[in-house]
Amino acid sequence: MTAISNRLTRTLNIRHPIISAPMHLAAGGVLAAAVSRAGGLGLIGGGYGDSTWLDEQFEAAAAQRVGVGFITWSLRKSPSLLTDVLKRNPAAVMLSFGDPRLFVDEIRKAGALVICQCQNTDHVWDAIDVGADIVVAQGAEAGGHGALRGTLSFVPETANLLAVHSPNSMLLAAGGIADGRGLAAALMLGADGVLVGTRFWASNEALVSERHHEAIIEATGDETIRTTVADIARQIPWPRGFTARIRRNAFTQRWHDRESLLEQNVAVEGPCYRQAFSEGDPDNTGVWFGEAAGLVSTIEPASVIVDRMATDAASLLSGQRATSLT
Amino acid sequence: MTAISNRLTRTLNIRHPIISAPMHLAAGGVLAAAVSRAGGLGLIGGGYGDSTWLDEQFEAAAAQRVGVGFITWSLRKSPSLLTDVLKRNPAAVMLSFGDPRLFVDEIRKAGALVICQCQNTDHVWDAIDVGADIVVAQGAEAGGHGALRGTLSFVPETANLLAVHSPNSMLLAAGGIADGRGLAAALMLGADGVLVGTRFWASNEALVSERHHEAIIEATGDETIRTTVADIARQIPWPRGFTARIRRNAFTQRWHDRESLLEQNVAVEGPCYRQAFSEGDPDNTGVWFGEAAGLVSTIEPASVIVDRMATDAASLLSGQRATSLT
Repeated sequence: MTAISNRLTRTLNIRHPIISAPMHLAAGGVLAAAVSRAGGLGLIGGGYGDSTWLDEQFEAAAAQRVGVGFITWSLRKSPSLLTDVLKRNPAAVMLSFGDPRLFVDEIRKAGALVICQCQNTDHVWDAIDVGADIVVAQGAEAGGHGALRGTLSFVPETANLLAVHSPNSMLLAAGGIADGRGLAAALMLGADGVLVGTRFWASNEALVSERHHEAIIEATGDETIRTTVADIARQIPWPRGFTARIRRNAFTQRWHDRESLLEQNVAVEGPCYRQAFSEGDPDNTGVWFGEAAGLVSTIEPASVIVDRMATDAASLLSGQRATSLT
Repeated sequence: MTAISNRLTRTLNIRHPIISAPMHLAAGGVLAAAVSRAGGLGLIGGGYGDSTWLDEQFEAAAAQRVGVGFITWSLRKSPSLLTDVLKRNPAAVMLSFGDPRLFVDEIRKAGALVICQCQNTDHVWDAIDVGADIVVAQGAEAGGHGALRGTLSFVPETANLLAVHSPNSMLLAAGGIADGRGLAAALMLGADGVLVGTRFWASNEALVSERHHEAIIEATGDETIRTTVADIARQIPWPRGFTARIRRNAFTQRWHDRESLLEQNVAVEGPCYRQAFSEGDPDNTGVWFGEAAGLVSTIEPASVIVDRMATDAASLLSGQRATSLT
């Protein structure tokens, strides 16, 4: 079989340059382990500070080698989460949405690789400054939290910066990548691999309710929106500049562009959001997927997703020489 | 020399699958002709109904085979523009931002190819409905008018729709593409070629003032914004859902998020905008480039841009087999 082999697969000792995103709540240990077992690297979602949940997820990953990702500004409030997690010997720790400087030394000392996820060139300079082992250029297409840059131009621009200022940092593309075409495109843009959220959110192993899974199957890629309303409803104080891409539904229709009204009514609306979420209601809460929804038509095992993505990308990259170059 | 050859290059009888975008005011006949002469296909910007300007630009293109692009909702107000232009035997006519149905028959009868530019899946269905020869999937990264979808996920989703419902329609990727990496990525995503705006805006042949050109060289890809303020200032009644990506500058800082105030003051602010534009002021008017600005570091002849994009893409596509596939 044809396989893609490069400095990322060699450094991480993985078979495919595919890393699953540390999606809060959805990316548990079973998903991360399944992605790693299939030849990629799975990351557990470090979330907002629930150490019990994190412990459970590392247990669920069993002996499988996985990594973990944190929301950096939130980790500052409970830095012991990182200390505890490092005892699990994660292969890598991803920091996103905040200043990575505070945590990099501790991660390195524990022998894990440092992944810095970036949403704009300022973030890339931060990642260069800490000498990140892996830099993720995340585009606005991504589900969940992110910012404004589109993946297709942000990846090569980041590649240019790294080539000059941090040539040993490897680069992942994130945002809108759900299949072998996306992986092959990311490699052409100068990335060493991909960080994939939405496609693994739509896997059997993801901790996602059945009706939320049904919603992604029905959705085109047009049916998502970048908004702050899920964070307002959950009363999670995200810093300015970051929004979350979620499904367009009754909840976003009701509150997007009426954010201050939602803030005023959060004592009522917050519990409604959380109850709808825990009940798997796809309409009155955040349903956390990105524009790649338009490329998802089935819920499948993570191993099938990894296999097909790797095989199709390799085939596209080798097929091209035969058919299109003269 | 290695070259990319596919159904798009064969159908259009061009050497490289590269089409320049019909940018209002910037894409005149000299630029379009230069792109065509270099082996791509250049499109003149049909704009908002200035038939004298259009005539001049077709004259400037001299005998070179070029195409033209229209803003569909605007063309409805002055449909004779199309009739006049078709007498020039354009190779192709691109329709964007509105219902293409009204114009397709006339374009076909004149022997030109129909290009439908799409910003979401509804638009793709319109393009399928009229049997567009070429469909452009334009992502939000693009400079100038556009909408919300990111290029990286919108292109393969459009490719999926066309494969089933209109397999003879060819597909171009647009938005954020400025070099061989973007072209190679677009082909991996399922496109037959690319429509390139910003990179040609930053060419010697583009009708762009020197200080606007200086601004793009300095800008990173972060320094643009999707906004309606340029349209409000110019009093051009764009339909809801479309915004224009322009440089972040004093003008956007002053008015973005204060749109109703700008509307109230348009009698004063409109002329200021237009005067600043005509003077080449890069701060107090719209400066029309997209996120690919971060990939532009020199103003060059269009032929150099076409050559390098085609050569680099072919080299990436063939190089990949040697270095990364085992």
